[in-house]
Amino acid sequence: MEHPLSRLIDQFKLLPGIGQKSAERLAFYMLSLSKQKVDVFSDTVKQTRAHVRYCECCYSIAFEARCRLCLDPTRNQRQLCIVADAKSVFSLERMQRFKGVYHVLGGLLSPLDGIHPEVLRLKELLARLRSSSFDEIVLAINPSIEGEATIMYIKSLLAPLSLNVSTLAYGLPVGADLDYIDELTLEKAYIGRSVEEKMSL
Amino acid sequence: MEHPLSRLIDQFKLLPGIGQKSAERLAFYMLSLSKQKVDVFSDTVKQTRAHVRYCECCYSIAFEARCRLCLDPTRNQRQLCIVADAKSVFSLERMQRFKGVYHVLGGLLSPLDGIHPEVLRLKELLARLRSSSFDEIVLAINPSIEGEATIMYIKSLLAPLSLNVSTLAYGLPVGADLDYIDELTLEKAYIGRSVEEKMSL
Repeated sequence: MEHPLSRLIDQFKLLPGIGQKSAERLAFYMLSLSKQKVDVFSDTVKQTRAHVRYCECCYSIAFEARCRLCLDPTRNQRQLCIVADAKSVFSLERMQRFKGVYHVLGGLLSPLDGIHPEVLRLKELLARLRSSSFDEIVLAINPSIEGEATIMYIKSLLAPLSLNVSTLAYGLPVGADLDYIDELTLEKAYIGRSVEEKMSL
Repeated sequence: MEHPLSRLIDQFKLLPGIGQKSAERLAFYMLSLSKQKVDVFSDTVKQTRAHVRYCECCYSIAFEARCRLCLDPTRNQRQLCIVADAKSVFSLERMQRFKGVYHVLGGLLSPLDGIHPEVLRLKELLARLRSSSFDEIVLAINPSIEGEATIMYIKSLLAPLSLNVSTLAYGLPVGADLDYIDELTLEKAYIGRSVEEKMSL
């Protein structure tokens, strides 16, 4: 006879970063909550997954045909930020600095994993760039091998369109310690160093 | 307009050990799963919480009136292990060594948190000890301040019944390094050292 919680523990173990012990802890925690609270939790999971879909304009996540950012009249429709996934949109929105709109690629180029250019939403990107005009295109993509490859590919794709294309700066993260930073990042920070207008020594 | 995932993220943040970033990760992960898988997850959470109850014999968790261990005819009904909560039963069962039955106290004495002896299932324990006879009572309780207090209280409670009462051994955890172990544990390990029958130097 299996343990009453074994099915629940198995379900929690499917989540990323949750191992056996964490799953057990979460399962027992669920029992300590009121039935009502657990119902709210499980209904939220189910309902959110059931109702979320891709925005027909930027391919970020939305409850309606278009996402709240594409519908927002205060967003600058002439600034486009290209990102790998909807999670990136979420992270960039947290900085509250970019006020334009997004285009979600749906992944990064990775031929070994079968992610070729045609898998990404590049056709949709080109259609969008042709139908609207943008003052600036920002590529906000992870500085990983796949990210760099994707950035290079998109840059070559956009070259004939003569657009202002920028990428996020490489450099030291805030609070970094020069003694502990890897030499590649340090080199990028050195190459990208900013020159003061006037410098009185 | 709120983010489509904000409610789900808030729900995940209620779980122990899940902060803002982990909750975001889990919420986006849910979107990457099929609706069917997410339904199984949320239904398992809801159904488990709805159907789990306390075993009427040992107060561990069960789907029926009695838990699977109390119903198991192969368990030794004359060995009783007293534990703080149902999670402890789960952990002890993992070692596959103890073959007796359990009694779940439902907490540890902590007067400052309002957990007095009458809150724990001690009346039920005494009733059980009077109605059945046990060869051994094992106190498997955390060696914390509350745990020690609870062990002392139960020992005083059981003293008039002249039962064989044992507690888990203190000592070095397997794989420990003497240089890093705290001195209290080291002292307990020294006090509880085992003497070899014959020692040829």
